[in-house]
Amino acid sequence: MKQTHILLGHGSGGRLSHELIRNLFVRHFHNPLLEQQGDAALIDVNSKKLAFTTDSFVVDPLFFPGGDIGKLAVAGTVNDLAVSGAVPKYLSAGFIIEEGFPLEMLEKVVISMAAEAQKAGVLIVTGDTKVVEKGKCDKLFINTAGVGEMIEGAENIAAGSTIEAGDKILINGSVGDHGMAVMGARNQLNISAGILSDCACLNQLTEMAIKQTNAIKFMRDATRGGLGTVMAELCEGRNFGIQLFEENIPMKEGVRGMCELLGFDPLYVANEGKVVVVVSPDAAEHLLKLFRAHPLGKEAVIIGEITSAHAGRTWLETSIGGSRIVDMPAGEQLPRIC
Amino acid sequence: MKQTHILLGHGSGGRLSHELIRNLFVRHFHNPLLEQQGDAALIDVNSKKLAFTTDSFVVDPLFFPGGDIGKLAVAGTVNDLAVSGAVPKYLSAGFIIEEGFPLEMLEKVVISMAAEAQKAGVLIVTGDTKVVEKGKCDKLFINTAGVGEMIEGAENIAAGSTIEAGDKILINGSVGDHGMAVMGARNQLNISAGILSDCACLNQLTEMAIKQTNAIKFMRDATRGGLGTVMAELCEGRNFGIQLFEENIPMKEGVRGMCELLGFDPLYVANEGKVVVVVSPDAAEHLLKLFRAHPLGKEAVIIGEITSAHAGRTWLETSIGGSRIVDMPAGEQLPRIC
Repeated sequence: MKQTHILLGHGSGGRLSHELIRNLFVRHFHNPLLEQQGDAALIDVNSKKLAFTTDSFVVDPLFFPGGDIGKLAVAGTVNDLAVSGAVPKYLSAGFIIEEGFPLEMLEKVVISMAAEAQKAGVLIVTGDTKVVEKGKCDKLFINTAGVGEMIEGAENIAAGSTIEAGDKILINGSVGDHGMAVMGARNQLNISAGILSDCACLNQLTEMAIKQTNAIKFMRDATRGGLGTVMAELCEGRNFGIQLFEENIPMKEGVRGMCELLGFDPLYVANEGKVVVVVSPDAAEHLLKLFRAHPLGKEAVIIGEITSAHAGRTWLETSIGGSRIVDMPAGEQLPRIC
Repeated sequence: MKQTHILLGHGSGGRLSHELIRNLFVRHFHNPLLEQQGDAALIDVNSKKLAFTTDSFVVDPLFFPGGDIGKLAVAGTVNDLAVSGAVPKYLSAGFIIEEGFPLEMLEKVVISMAAEAQKAGVLIVTGDTKVVEKGKCDKLFINTAGVGEMIEGAENIAAGSTIEAGDKILINGSVGDHGMAVMGARNQLNISAGILSDCACLNQLTEMAIKQTNAIKFMRDATRGGLGTVMAELCEGRNFGIQLFEENIPMKEGVRGMCELLGFDPLYVANEGKVVVVVSPDAAEHLLKLFRAHPLGKEAVIIGEITSAHAGRTWLETSIGGSRIVDMPAGEQLPRIC
């Protein structure tokens, strides 16, 4: 069915988002850089390669266990640059604030942004503030854009253009933490007690991985749409398939329980500190060791591999021995988690 | 009085905005690049100087005579780069859309952005879409960030650090058009008939001016807060004053009439295609000729000069022979014009 109006699903990162991006934004803004459709664009400035990216944050509620909109706004954009093979350097920050919003709360958000930027080694160098009348936005929205310097030899990572059958797929830890932490905070659910968002800047982890292995073929942070969407998107239209092993995919007990109770598929629940990496098979064990020695990679595991079979499709071998396709979700299972 | 909550005036570009920026954003994000507080930050990437800037657009209504939120979102960021002495190259575009927004209208906005980007010679290379529930934002907000290459020798233009007494002040045309066009469209006022927003990308004009005179000391686009705010801001805390001549300041009859009727001071009404330039006295006439030969500078005039008297203050010699101080406005006379 052809949509005539914007649905929540158009912002999901799933099928509807992809259609909107392809049929509207890419079609009209058409240029080869946009058509790369990575998490960041690789741009030429003064004949040097830079990565450039943007994200808006509309998370509800603004504060949740493990983070807040400010931390998220920094980490989200830092991570988009990082997984594109860049060293993040500079951020912009655009605030849209509802009239009547408490200054004290704004300051908490700003302090959180500053702390996260410092941790990641990036500078917030330019900004903008707009205020709209009470009722015309929901408290606070933040946009960040970021510029990073490409790591030499990392130009193919964002597109994954060198991926081939046999490559291994790694993740740096458990899935679904961020989505369930926000869900719990939004609805004040007791069952979410103890679940913290994994929101974190991954740039030091990714830079180390690229430089010390020289064998990274693709990286993507599994945010909106979760691990499942990243995998489905990666192999769509390509000459390889993906095989995932469910029992290898790390998941916290609390997250698993909450997903079961509420009917969410944890494969599609958002993360904000998880990176999925495709690496040459001969370098996979080395990468695993490197990851596990880093605070943000302690629970890293190999969760799957690239196959020559079922090209364009992601298959999940389930814990109980079955097999199912991991498709891109059509709509939105959990709006406004970032 | 110390504010505890965000007011509309915090987004005005006037006194309250400045306090918020200084006391909150600059204080917590503190770094020398942010403290330049130009329209764009000058950043070092791969040992080259770039300009980097961001703006969010929340204009109401989305479409107005002479433009729309899309055209504005491109021109606004292009102009911030241009007046900083850069050649704008790449833009990002972040959309926050209200659930239920008509796709057809979104497409009109996107087409308008694409056309304006093409005219300015910039590429929209990366983007993001968020959708919020109906009632949680007002139709559509757009953030653009931009990256430009600094023109050699233009590093001091954004800060105006070489300004001295005797320098001339130019503007490329009439003031107040944008604010009154939006005001008229918002309230469906008959008196605004024929008033068009001046929304336009100024980068070709500014690049030509910098390169062909080598005498430009400062440029700023007079957007939120209008010409008056730009002037008050420029001399604040500096060792020079500003003298403006009211009878030289170009204004369309319709804008003058509408301002009189509604009680607006046109000096503080927003423009979206007007640049204020400080230039060495010996190059002023040459610049005027260059401007007048360009479609966006046909009505350029010298409107004032830098003085050694009344340092830190802008004085306006009025048409009737009086004199008054042009101060920075405290609050907001016209919210959501950009």
